[in-house]
Amino acid sequence: MAKELVFGHLNPDTDAIVAAIAYSQLQNQLGYETEAVALGEPNDETKFVLDYFDQETPRVIDKIGDQVQAVMLVDHNEAQQSVPDIDTVAVTHVVDHHRIANFKTTSPLFYHAEPVGCTSTILWKMYNENEVQIPQKIAGLMLSAIISDTLLLKSPTTTDDDRQAVQALADVANVDYQDYGLKMLKAGTNIAAKTAEDLIDADAKTFDMGGHNVRIAQVNVVDLAEALERQSEFEDAMKQSSQTNGYDLFLLAITNVLDSDTTMVVTGDNDLQTKVAKAFNHDIENSRLDLPGVVSRKKQIVPPLQQQF
Amino acid sequence: MAKELVFGHLNPDTDAIVAAIAYSQLQNQLGYETEAVALGEPNDETKFVLDYFDQETPRVIDKIGDQVQAVMLVDHNEAQQSVPDIDTVAVTHVVDHHRIANFKTTSPLFYHAEPVGCTSTILWKMYNENEVQIPQKIAGLMLSAIISDTLLLKSPTTTDDDRQAVQALADVANVDYQDYGLKMLKAGTNIAAKTAEDLIDADAKTFDMGGHNVRIAQVNVVDLAEALERQSEFEDAMKQSSQTNGYDLFLLAITNVLDSDTTMVVTGDNDLQTKVAKAFNHDIENSRLDLPGVVSRKKQIVPPLQQQF
Repeated sequence: MAKELVFGHLNPDTDAIVAAIAYSQLQNQLGYETEAVALGEPNDETKFVLDYFDQETPRVIDKIGDQVQAVMLVDHNEAQQSVPDIDTVAVTHVVDHHRIANFKTTSPLFYHAEPVGCTSTILWKMYNENEVQIPQKIAGLMLSAIISDTLLLKSPTTTDDDRQAVQALADVANVDYQDYGLKMLKAGTNIAAKTAEDLIDADAKTFDMGGHNVRIAQVNVVDLAEALERQSEFEDAMKQSSQTNGYDLFLLAITNVLDSDTTMVVTGDNDLQTKVAKAFNHDIENSRLDLPGVVSRKKQIVPPLQQQF
Repeated sequence: MAKELVFGHLNPDTDAIVAAIAYSQLQNQLGYETEAVALGEPNDETKFVLDYFDQETPRVIDKIGDQVQAVMLVDHNEAQQSVPDIDTVAVTHVVDHHRIANFKTTSPLFYHAEPVGCTSTILWKMYNENEVQIPQKIAGLMLSAIISDTLLLKSPTTTDDDRQAVQALADVANVDYQDYGLKMLKAGTNIAAKTAEDLIDADAKTFDMGGHNVRIAQVNVVDLAEALERQSEFEDAMKQSSQTNGYDLFLLAITNVLDSDTTMVVTGDNDLQTKVAKAFNHDIENSRLDLPGVVSRKKQIVPPLQQQF
C-alpha cells in the first residue's frame, strides 16, 4: 500500500492538527503507511499543547503536488477548507464531525462522521473499537483537542461521548483536565500581541452560502470589551482581505470562552448583512451583532446563516 | 425524539430494502423511533428473500411529504437516487458503501461509509460494536443482501469483512449460505416473464457524469445468449425511456452471475458512446460492448466512465 498523508483543515486549530496525528498513529497500527501533516502553522493554543506533551510539530504543506496519490482527511471535508489541489488525489478516508458539503469522490471510501463536539472524540471511539491502545502522549493531545473544540465541555456542541472521552483520556494522559484545560484555553487567547490581519485569519473558514463566498473567523478571548477596542482595526483588515480574496461577506465572531458569549463583527455586501441580521433575529448596530450564549460556529452560527441564504 | 424514516435507494435491490429493515431495527434498539420503508416494490430476488425469512414487505413511499422531519439513508447518498423531495427533510444518519456525490447537509450528521461489498456488512459491524444481538430473521435478511451485492462473494467488490459477515450471519440465521445463495440468485434472474421496460428499470441508477445524465441499468442472468436475443427490444425501451426522462446515455449491463461476465448494451448520443468505448478500451459493435470479468457496476463500470467523462 502506498503512503498516504493525513491532515486537517486550513487555518488549523488544535483538533485539526491533533486529529491528524492521532488518526495517522491509529492507521499505522492497523497496517497503513501514513504521515500526519498540517495545512498551516499551529496557533498559540496548539503550540502550548504540542509543547506540553512534547509532540513534534507536523510538517506544514500547502499542496499535495507529487507527494502522494491518496490522502485521509480529518476534521473537515469541504474542498474549500482543504489543500487547494485536493482534486488531484483520491480521498480514501475521512473522519469528521461537520456537515457534509462540496465533497465528492469517484470511488467508495471510508467515511466516519458523527455529530459530536470534536473529531478526536470519534477517534477515541475508533481506537476502542479497533482495540488499539492509546499512547499516553496521544491521549493528552486528543484530550486537548476536545477541551479546545468544546471550550472545556461548555459549548452546546458537547455530547455525552465528548464527556466520556475527556474522562477516559484524562486518565490515560494522567492530567487534571479542569486545571490543564483552563491554562490551555488562556494560552490561546493572547490577542494583544497579534496584528488584526493575523487574528482574522487564524481560525477562519470559507463557506459557500447560496452562491456567496462567506468567510467566518472566530477569535477566543477572556475579555470581550478589551477585544472590541480594536473593532475598527479588525474591520479594515476584514475589508482588505475580502477585496483580496473575493469574499462577499466577512464575519468575525469574538467569543468570550469564560462567559460563553459572542459578539460578531460584520463587513461586506449590504443585502447580505441584512440576511445575517435576519438569520440571528438581531439588528446589526455599529457593524456589530451581540450573540449571547453563542460559542459554536458550527452549531450556532453556520446553520442559521445557511438556512437564511 | 421524533420518528424518522429509514430507506434505501430508488429501484431498490435486496440490500436497499434489507439494510433499511436491519438499520431501523438496530436504531430502535438504541433508542430511536424509526420505520423502515422502501422507494419501490421489491424485485423478484428480494421477494424470494422476504418470503424465505417470513419478513413483511416495507411500506413503499414515493415522497416524504409531511410524514417526517428527518430521515436516515442506507445504501445510497446521491440525491438523484433518493426520494424526489429529499431536500425538504434533514438527513441525520447515512450508512452506505458507495462513493459520495451530490450530497450535502446543513448540520453535522452521523455518516458511516466503508468501501465494502454491501451495506449490510457495515450494519453487521455496527450491531457488534453496539453489542446488540442480531435476531435470526434479520441475520438471514442481511446474509441475503451480502450474497446479492457480492454475487455469492465472487464480485471484485468483495472484502474480507464481507466474507466474515457472511460466515457469522449464516451461523445466526442457521442456513447453508452456498446452497441458499444459488437458489436466491436464480430467483432474481427469471427475465423471460418480464417486459423489456421492466427489465431496464428494475435495477437502474442515474449518474451525473460531466454534466450528462447517464442511466445505468443492470440485469442479472444465468444465460447471456438467451438474454441477448431480446437486444433490439431492450434498445427500443432504452431509447424510449431516454426520451421520456432526458437521459443523454443509457447503458444496460447484462451480467451472467454464474460466469461473472457482462455484455453492455449502449444507446444514446454518439459522442458519449465514443467516450464509453474509450473508458473500457473496447469497441462498441452492434450497440454492444463485451466486458469479460466485469460484474460490479459500482467498482468496474461507474469509475472508468466517471474518469472518462
